[in-house]
Amino acid sequence: MHRFFIASNEIQGQYVYLQAENAAHAKVLRIRPDEPFIACDENGIEYHCTLTQSNADTMVGQVLSTCICPNEATVQCTIYTAFPKGDKAEHIVQKCVEAGAHEIIFFPSSRCVSRPDGKSIEKKIARWQKISKEAAKQSMRGRIPTVSALHTWEQAVASAAQAELALMMYEPDSTIYRYPLREALATKDGYQTASIMTGPEGGFTREEVTYCSRAGLLPCSMGPRILRCETAPIAALFALMYHTGNLDK
Amino acid sequence: MHRFFIASNEIQGQYVYLQAENAAHAKVLRIRPDEPFIACDENGIEYHCTLTQSNADTMVGQVLSTCICPNEATVQCTIYTAFPKGDKAEHIVQKCVEAGAHEIIFFPSSRCVSRPDGKSIEKKIARWQKISKEAAKQSMRGRIPTVSALHTWEQAVASAAQAELALMMYEPDSTIYRYPLREALATKDGYQTASIMTGPEGGFTREEVTYCSRAGLLPCSMGPRILRCETAPIAALFALMYHTGNLDK
Repeated sequence: MHRFFIASNEIQGQYVYLQAENAAHAKVLRIRPDEPFIACDENGIEYHCTLTQSNADTMVGQVLSTCICPNEATVQCTIYTAFPKGDKAEHIVQKCVEAGAHEIIFFPSSRCVSRPDGKSIEKKIARWQKISKEAAKQSMRGRIPTVSALHTWEQAVASAAQAELALMMYEPDSTIYRYPLREALATKDGYQTASIMTGPEGGFTREEVTYCSRAGLLPCSMGPRILRCETAPIAALFALMYHTGNLDK
Repeated sequence: MHRFFIASNEIQGQYVYLQAENAAHAKVLRIRPDEPFIACDENGIEYHCTLTQSNADTMVGQVLSTCICPNEATVQCTIYTAFPKGDKAEHIVQKCVEAGAHEIIFFPSSRCVSRPDGKSIEKKIARWQKISKEAAKQSMRGRIPTVSALHTWEQAVASAAQAELALMMYEPDSTIYRYPLREALATKDGYQTASIMTGPEGGFTREEVTYCSRAGLLPCSMGPRILRCETAPIAALFALMYHTGNLDK
C-alpha cells in the first residue's frame, strides 16, 4: 500500500491532507477516489485512509483507522560511520534505513580521505536525508531516520557511547582483543538503544580503537572476511536486528 | 596482505608464478623483492610467499608455508536471485561474495522485467564473474564464487531444493505461512549446504511460493520492513552467516 509521511498539521479531524511533494507523488502514483493509502506522522502514528477528494494542489483522505506503525524495530540502533569516499554514503543510508536503523551519523576519523564541510556537507546531508525518506517510504517504516554529521571524532565516540549497547567494528589485528559479534550482542539483555560504529576505507587506527574502548565501546569482529566500509554497517545492523528478533515477524 | 588467485599449474615446487593479469596487478601494487603476499589456488590452498624475482611478464614468489584458507564459511550457501533490473545484479554479486556466498545463480521468474539471454547473458556473466573475483580478493576469500544463470524458474527451484537447508524469502502475505527467518535457520542442525532464494522487484507470485513449498523450500519472513530486491539476499545471507557462527571469529 502507498505510504506518505505527513506533518502533524496535515491531519485535521478525520481528514488527512496530502500537499506539495506528497500531492505530486500521489498524482504520479495515480491514486484514485476510494483507493486506500497510509499516511504516517512524525510520531510514528499510521493513518489508514481512502482518497475522497483531489484538486490541483491537495489530495484529501478520510481516516478509517489509526495505529502505531508496527514496522519499527524494538531496538533504536544508531549507525556511526566515518565519511566514506564517493557515493558510498548514499548506499549506506539507503540500506541502513531498510534494515531499520534509528539514525545515521557520519563523522571524520584519521584515515578518512573525504572530509566534507561547510556548504558541501550541508548539500550532502540534504541529499542523504532525501534518500532516507525514500527508503523509509519504500520499506514501510513508521518514521524517517535522521541523517546528520558530526565535526569531530571525539564527538562521535562520546555520542555513540551513550547507547545501552555500544559496538565498534574493527578488522583483524592480533594486538587488540575483539569480541565476536555474537558475544558482543549478548553482553546485555533487553537493550532498547544501541550504536554501531564503523570506519572509513582504511579502517580505524589502533589509537582510535583504544580510545573507543576507554569510552565504553566494545571492539567487535565480524569474522575473517574483510568487509568493505560500506558493507560493514549493513552487515552489523542486520546481525543486530536478527539477534534482537527484529528480522522475524 | 595482497592476495592473488592462481591456477594449479602456476605453482611449481617451491615457487609460485604470477603471470598475465596477476603480474600486471602486482606491478600496480608495487610489490617489491622480499615483500610477502598470498597466492590461493582453485582448491582453496593458500601459499604464503615472498617475492624473489620479477621481470616483464612474470613475478616469482618463493613459498614459505601453505595452509587451507581459514576464511571460508563452514556452510556452503548458494544464492538464487531472480534477474533484477539495471546494475543491481553487480551489487548483489559483490556484497554476497564479501558475505561468504559459495555460489550465485540468477534465474527468470514471472515478474522479472529483465530477462537477458543469448549474447547478452554471456557478457553479463563474464562481468559478474569479474566482480566476484575482485570481491573475493578484497575480502580475503579462499575461492572465487561462481556466478551463473539458469534458463528457467523450474531449474532454479529444483537446484535450490537440493541444499540441506533451502529457504525462499517472501514478502508479507496473509494467505501463506512464512517461517520467521530465525525459526527457519534453526529447523536443522549442522547443515553444510544451504540455499537462499529471493525474488525480482515485484516479488514472487503466490503460485511461485506454492511451487517452491512443494519442492521443499521454506517460505521465510525477514520482518515487517520491505527490503529491496538487491537488499534481501544480502540480509538473508548475513543472517545465515551470523546464525551459523560464520560472522564471529
